[in-house]
Amino acid sequence: MNNELLQTLRNITGTSHVLSEGDLTAWEQDWRKRARGKALAVVRPASTAEVAEVVKACAAAGVSLVAQGGNTGLVCGSIPDETGKQVVLSLQRMNAVREVDAANLTMTVEAGCILQTLQETAEKAGFLFPLSLAAEGSCTIGGNLATNAGGTQVVRYGNARELCLGLEVVTPQGEIWEGLSGLRKDNTGYDLRDLFIGSEGTLGIITSATMKLYPMPAAQLTAWAAVPSMEHAVTLLGLAHQHLGAGLTGFEVMGQFALRLVAKHFPQQRVPLYLDTPFCVLLENSDHESETHAREQFERLLEVALEQGCVTDAVVAENLTQAHQLWHVRESIPLAQAEEGLNIKHDISISVSRIPDFVRETDELLQKAIPGVRMVNFGHLGDGNLHYNVQAPAAGDTKAFLREREEEVNTIVYDAVARFDGSISAEHGVGSLKLDKLEHHKSPVALGMMRAIKQALDPQNVMNPGRVLRA
Amino acid sequence: MNNELLQTLRNITGTSHVLSEGDLTAWEQDWRKRARGKALAVVRPASTAEVAEVVKACAAAGVSLVAQGGNTGLVCGSIPDETGKQVVLSLQRMNAVREVDAANLTMTVEAGCILQTLQETAEKAGFLFPLSLAAEGSCTIGGNLATNAGGTQVVRYGNARELCLGLEVVTPQGEIWEGLSGLRKDNTGYDLRDLFIGSEGTLGIITSATMKLYPMPAAQLTAWAAVPSMEHAVTLLGLAHQHLGAGLTGFEVMGQFALRLVAKHFPQQRVPLYLDTPFCVLLENSDHESETHAREQFERLLEVALEQGCVTDAVVAENLTQAHQLWHVRESIPLAQAEEGLNIKHDISISVSRIPDFVRETDELLQKAIPGVRMVNFGHLGDGNLHYNVQAPAAGDTKAFLREREEEVNTIVYDAVARFDGSISAEHGVGSLKLDKLEHHKSPVALGMMRAIKQALDPQNVMNPGRVLRA
Repeated sequence: MNNELLQTLRNITGTSHVLSEGDLTAWEQDWRKRARGKALAVVRPASTAEVAEVVKACAAAGVSLVAQGGNTGLVCGSIPDETGKQVVLSLQRMNAVREVDAANLTMTVEAGCILQTLQETAEKAGFLFPLSLAAEGSCTIGGNLATNAGGTQVVRYGNARELCLGLEVVTPQGEIWEGLSGLRKDNTGYDLRDLFIGSEGTLGIITSATMKLYPMPAAQLTAWAAVPSMEHAVTLLGLAHQHLGAGLTGFEVMGQFALRLVAKHFPQQRVPLYLDTPFCVLLENSDHESETHAREQFERLLEVALEQGCVTDAVVAENLTQAHQLWHVRESIPLAQAEEGLNIKHDISISVSRIPDFVRETDELLQKAIPGVRMVNFGHLGDGNLHYNVQAPAAGDTKAFLREREEEVNTIVYDAVARFDGSISAEHGVGSLKLDKLEHHKSPVALGMMRAIKQALDPQNVMNPGRVLRA
Repeated sequence: MNNELLQTLRNITGTSHVLSEGDLTAWEQDWRKRARGKALAVVRPASTAEVAEVVKACAAAGVSLVAQGGNTGLVCGSIPDETGKQVVLSLQRMNAVREVDAANLTMTVEAGCILQTLQETAEKAGFLFPLSLAAEGSCTIGGNLATNAGGTQVVRYGNARELCLGLEVVTPQGEIWEGLSGLRKDNTGYDLRDLFIGSEGTLGIITSATMKLYPMPAAQLTAWAAVPSMEHAVTLLGLAHQHLGAGLTGFEVMGQFALRLVAKHFPQQRVPLYLDTPFCVLLENSDHESETHAREQFERLLEVALEQGCVTDAVVAENLTQAHQLWHVRESIPLAQAEEGLNIKHDISISVSRIPDFVRETDELLQKAIPGVRMVNFGHLGDGNLHYNVQAPAAGDTKAFLREREEEVNTIVYDAVARFDGSISAEHGVGSLKLDKLEHHKSPVALGMMRAIKQALDPQNVMNPGRVLRA
């Protein structure tokens, strides 16, 4: 039976694009090395028609499919399970830029296009494609859309969802939905596009997408500000919205301990440490006029913020190199944290107005439960999104900490998130990693509708079963 | 049976809020007076709990529901059918502003809030709520969301969809989905919010919503530019994006004949007619800095446009009064058109880059089919959305024109839209008016998924049956 299916798949894509032997680690192991599955085969179709044929063949054989892009997901949503019975459908070979439409401010790309390729394609045409995140050199736009990726420019441009105008999708029945569209307005029925975006490959396979382009800003400036508290960081955010308008394209908060970890483990980096303040903020101002104008605007904002006392010290990067250095510090936090030892990560969101209370209360609860616990708290404050990570106390066995306390820590954090009406997965998704947590924290009415939709569109459960929703 | 249901409904909302006798025109007749239904009753619940009870009672009695806000829809989607067997559920009494959260840039409002109330509430708190459209004094935010309303600021802020962060919805089973959320990032499962937005009351009843607020611009300036062709209008749009960035908050195109109709029927209005150009463009520039800065930016843009020849003449409004006058001209086009006589309206969208070809080709086809036909072509060019309306030839019986030629005209226009990969309903929705057209023009794969979703969420077909999809 399996041999028959493998032969059918070979007939569709060519023998060399059905991998069933040898080292399949690249497709079977997740990015953070938290899980490893076993694939019946990895199939790499070259076209939408081939994807449709592969889906039909698998559905006919009763074999389920796991769609995979760059395999950089953080919730074990794009690797096969351990049964050895699932086919991994890799979109890697579907990486063409189909069209750039300058007058319409759109580009149409295949799902396997690397995010960085989209950024570069846009830049070459004189535009900005603003989706930007740590894995941009490896992740694919198909995966970005399947997980509704976020990143550092969401405060201005929104998540992957907001950047997408249309999709081409292969359904669980192997039909092709030609929903590519460069239209900014289209009210002809239910919003299927947004249903597929963020569904993590459980409703169909995104094969191509039409994405928005933006005019390239004339200047992008970065500032670093020390703030006396999280409350003040929130006040600064309000001032920044008011003074910079849509110019505010980045607003990241970083806790003191997170920054000290970067200074400790990457001494070659010049971390602007303000040891007397609990948080620093990284701001980005994009300007369509000029660098001079951007700098004036930025300096005026920081003056007001200093006067009002919500900033104690601040610096605007003098040039691009300095700006990159500041962003590099921010982006090095996860690595510094890894150097320091194992830790428990959370990707949560809360209404911006409630974040200061959330952090104070939850910090206290954790400190009480685990004296000496260290908070690596940083994230996209502009979007209410914190990477609220918990590092073991300095003394002691970190492996044991993870093994013995992870569940307890997660419960404390996620229960607090629930009390503050927040989300337990702001930008990473659910995959298989947060399946249990979702069942516990999501409203039963919402879960009921999700199950009904999954059942309606994929009654055979062909598409990534057991992810997002239990199989 | 009906009497029993009516009594149950009275027990839920109080007798005075179940209307089943007397003149129900306000709820039974559509805005454009194209259709009139007959309701079993109009029920006006005061709370989400009451809405849920009403839905349960109707579902139990096998009676279907039509949700209604301000009843200003343009596609006969919120009036009852002619059977006298449907209950109209009016959200008019649910019009509270539940919360304004300044630090989070959100407000939570009930579905029956008038759009203008949202604008005013935002303004009082020092913010902008950017959704703006002709019916804003009467339409409700629930209806705006149910139909994913567009309007004049979409080029910058998006449709109603893009302005919404969370919903509270009563399901066809009378359950309450508490999906209100001020979160800008939440990847915990399928995007139910966007499924309800634009579903025109066929999947559930929106009872409350959390909407985005924006910083109030320091200045809003309006300019009027004569352009030598639609191609030049598209070039001007590109320049405006480049020079104004996110400052570009309005970009409307108006055909010569449309403007002449305003001048003819509203002689008190000062219409800036440029009789030698086929189109004029209305631009709006919002600036977070100052009026002086906005004016500088605008003048620089228009200088470049004049130099490049894509604008032949232009004026920037000197003050708010002048700006309002210019917008008033734009907004008077539909009224002037009505004064001129019956006409055939289309609300279409096409990729911006393809609009010039579309207009040229379709104008020709119509002229050929109906010599002397007059095009009232205007709309939101920044979003690729045209109100491409067809007025009868000057001589002749306009009633006969509408009766005898409407189908032919629609076929010519919609077939052209299909050839250009556009949408036959950009911002008005489907309702019952475009049901047949949708079946003809939407992809069968998409229609199949829509039907499966409707069946999954509303198997009893309680919610607005026969709208969007055939019952």
